[in-house]
Amino acid sequence: MGDAPHKILLDESEMPTAWYNVIPDLPAPPPPPLHPGTHEPVGPDDLAPLFPMALIEQEVTGERYVDIPGEVLDVYRIWRPSPLFRATRLERELGTPARIYYKYEGVSPAGSHKPNTSVPQAFYNHREGMECEVWQVAASYRSKPYRRTMMEIWGATVHSSPSEVTEFGRSLLAEDPNHPGSLGIAISEAVAMAVADPATRYALGSVLNHVLLHQTIIGEEALLQLAKVGDVPDVLVGCTGGGSNFGGLAFPFLREKLAGKMNPTIRCVEPAACPSLTKGEYRYDFGDTAGMTPLMKMHTLGHGFIPDAIHAGGLRYHGMSPLVSHIYELGLAEAIAIPQRECFAGALTFARTEGIVPAPEPTHAIAAAIREALACKESGEEKVILTALCGHGHLDMAAYEQYLSGEMVDLDLSDDAIAAAMAEVPVL
Amino acid sequence: MGDAPHKILLDESEMPTAWYNVIPDLPAPPPPPLHPGTHEPVGPDDLAPLFPMALIEQEVTGERYVDIPGEVLDVYRIWRPSPLFRATRLERELGTPARIYYKYEGVSPAGSHKPNTSVPQAFYNHREGMECEVWQVAASYRSKPYRRTMMEIWGATVHSSPSEVTEFGRSLLAEDPNHPGSLGIAISEAVAMAVADPATRYALGSVLNHVLLHQTIIGEEALLQLAKVGDVPDVLVGCTGGGSNFGGLAFPFLREKLAGKMNPTIRCVEPAACPSLTKGEYRYDFGDTAGMTPLMKMHTLGHGFIPDAIHAGGLRYHGMSPLVSHIYELGLAEAIAIPQRECFAGALTFARTEGIVPAPEPTHAIAAAIREALACKESGEEKVILTALCGHGHLDMAAYEQYLSGEMVDLDLSDDAIAAAMAEVPVL
Repeated sequence: MGDAPHKILLDESEMPTAWYNVIPDLPAPPPPPLHPGTHEPVGPDDLAPLFPMALIEQEVTGERYVDIPGEVLDVYRIWRPSPLFRATRLERELGTPARIYYKYEGVSPAGSHKPNTSVPQAFYNHREGMECEVWQVAASYRSKPYRRTMMEIWGATVHSSPSEVTEFGRSLLAEDPNHPGSLGIAISEAVAMAVADPATRYALGSVLNHVLLHQTIIGEEALLQLAKVGDVPDVLVGCTGGGSNFGGLAFPFLREKLAGKMNPTIRCVEPAACPSLTKGEYRYDFGDTAGMTPLMKMHTLGHGFIPDAIHAGGLRYHGMSPLVSHIYELGLAEAIAIPQRECFAGALTFARTEGIVPAPEPTHAIAAAIREALACKESGEEKVILTALCGHGHLDMAAYEQYLSGEMVDLDLSDDAIAAAMAEVPVL
Repeated sequence: MGDAPHKILLDESEMPTAWYNVIPDLPAPPPPPLHPGTHEPVGPDDLAPLFPMALIEQEVTGERYVDIPGEVLDVYRIWRPSPLFRATRLERELGTPARIYYKYEGVSPAGSHKPNTSVPQAFYNHREGMECEVWQVAASYRSKPYRRTMMEIWGATVHSSPSEVTEFGRSLLAEDPNHPGSLGIAISEAVAMAVADPATRYALGSVLNHVLLHQTIIGEEALLQLAKVGDVPDVLVGCTGGGSNFGGLAFPFLREKLAGKMNPTIRCVEPAACPSLTKGEYRYDFGDTAGMTPLMKMHTLGHGFIPDAIHAGGLRYHGMSPLVSHIYELGLAEAIAIPQRECFAGALTFARTEGIVPAPEPTHAIAAAIREALACKESGEEKVILTALCGHGHLDMAAYEQYLSGEMVDLDLSDDAIAAAMAEVPVL
């Protein structure tokens, strides 16, 4: 202990004041989203029923940087800049010559990276008396009531999805009153509500460009923090569900890589039970189950694919952010899939050395970082490994209880289920 | 927004390196603990079966400052220095001219102030392969499984108390297999285990001098942080169960008050369902239910008193820290009791303005701060109010769910129950 700085902080005055848009720096632009009826690229007008114009502009902007509004910076300052930790105790436990850093987003009031985008989305949507209705996947609504309560504390109304509120929801409940729901179904319901009412807009927590844009403050801060200790990452690993945590950490480092200033390996880590990058196809597909969203070119397991109920609920999405998919196709990022028991084993080692209990989603990133650190132990390489601990696990103790009691299993991925879901993907 | 600094931080280099012992600065020393058999003051030898000598020395030291070991400082740096927040959004919501500050301890890996003392206690008890067994009150063990799981993640073995492990526990389970337990019973069981095995020691989270000593880093940091913005508290409010959060915040300010450098009103806030200071008697009583601990002079509701099952489980203790009791008797602190519904109403206002969801215990401090701020609104006084938000509420969402659903009630305190418990207190 005490042999290396454990926590690397920024002053508030050093907090980045712009989000970074990676698109103009890429060697090729990502394929555009298509209108599901005409198969023509969608324009801002097509998105106007769903999003406020400021967010649509961010979705399609060609500018490399977007200024963060002062009001958003004021709220960010409740928890930002977030700390970057050097995992010296974990390194010692592993006996690795690698240097492991993790950017910790669990210091936010929600305990995760999500407020980095929910705050600006609320800001751009804000009108006097703004109300917030949430469609939460029924399986989570039932088994993770703490998350629902937290949203209610902050004033939101939460629906279990499928719900009685939408026609699509009612049709699914008629088939099965105990329908577990899925992220794709919840998106269909929320989009339907937004389309039906001119005063209602849709908000989401991942996948789209503007969401990833807002998360880049993670990577921008991490760049400044690593510079303070004079380190440059050799390997960057981030967990991927819809891609927002990964993109938020990785894109600023990808900028530096494309500019020739560093050359990190950039690696996506996804759950073995929902491996959109490593087992999905790169095709145009819907973002939701009912087929209401524009068609997006992305790695997909099929919009009708319902992933098994692993504990990392935030990674249970049939597709991958089109922007992360594009970068993967360009060869600028690689991907691996890890089963959940290895992830929780790594998380336990992490909690018993670094102190912080990770949420189930970033246990994937931690497990990948540990794999890399153990490879360094074999090879003797002193690699610098950077990852993001995108949330704490205080709301997910039931998952740890299952792991500790030996009841957790690695869910087998059904190739038949993927094949069946892929058969429903539109052929363009 | 943006009109005043919201978050006041310290550099790691500014982190205090000593704990503060208030006892030498008090106008009179606190009455000593007494041996339950002889009624003579207990000495270090009497405590040796329970605690390592370093902690016994801290319990009885006459030094004003105790250096924090470097190894403990290294672990503190995972989350310390903790932030001090100016509650500008809450002030605006209340329309008060008061300035409200809160010191936030929810940034620790456990989400509360408790690691400030559990880390040094573990350090002083440390031997190769140290094991940790915890007796958790049965009612909490059953209704709050997340806390148990967190302890298991970090490697502890957790027993529901009363347990089959001790004779006292077995006797209570024989009477009632579903016995809800109490803090006093859990202490009796843990003490019995420590006394029975020369290699086993006892550790506790509040009440004793050395525990409060460790928590003074909270107040020492807050002093430095307030000085950065040039403010001095007119009123300091802290929630009190066993007294460690309150003492940790208040004692450094009490030092300044006794030195004539400031003159804050210092106020304890306790739950109306367990009002040891406002309704208890200042007498020698046992710290535990079975009567195994030394007799301590403190405000007590009787060591057999079982508080109602309010949500602020950390405040459900029949007694009060002897040191806090002594300071209260000296007239250096005052006390009020607040029922839980007012506390949760205040917490909801707090969460919707400041963002952070408080644990049930500090909702008492927040409710008291809001009372004071509203009084300032009436009087026009621009008082500076300081309080401690000693933990976040991510593990206590069930309590909020009950409040939001309208099912929470203010539990009536039974004077008969207090009278019956007080009848069992030894007459010296």
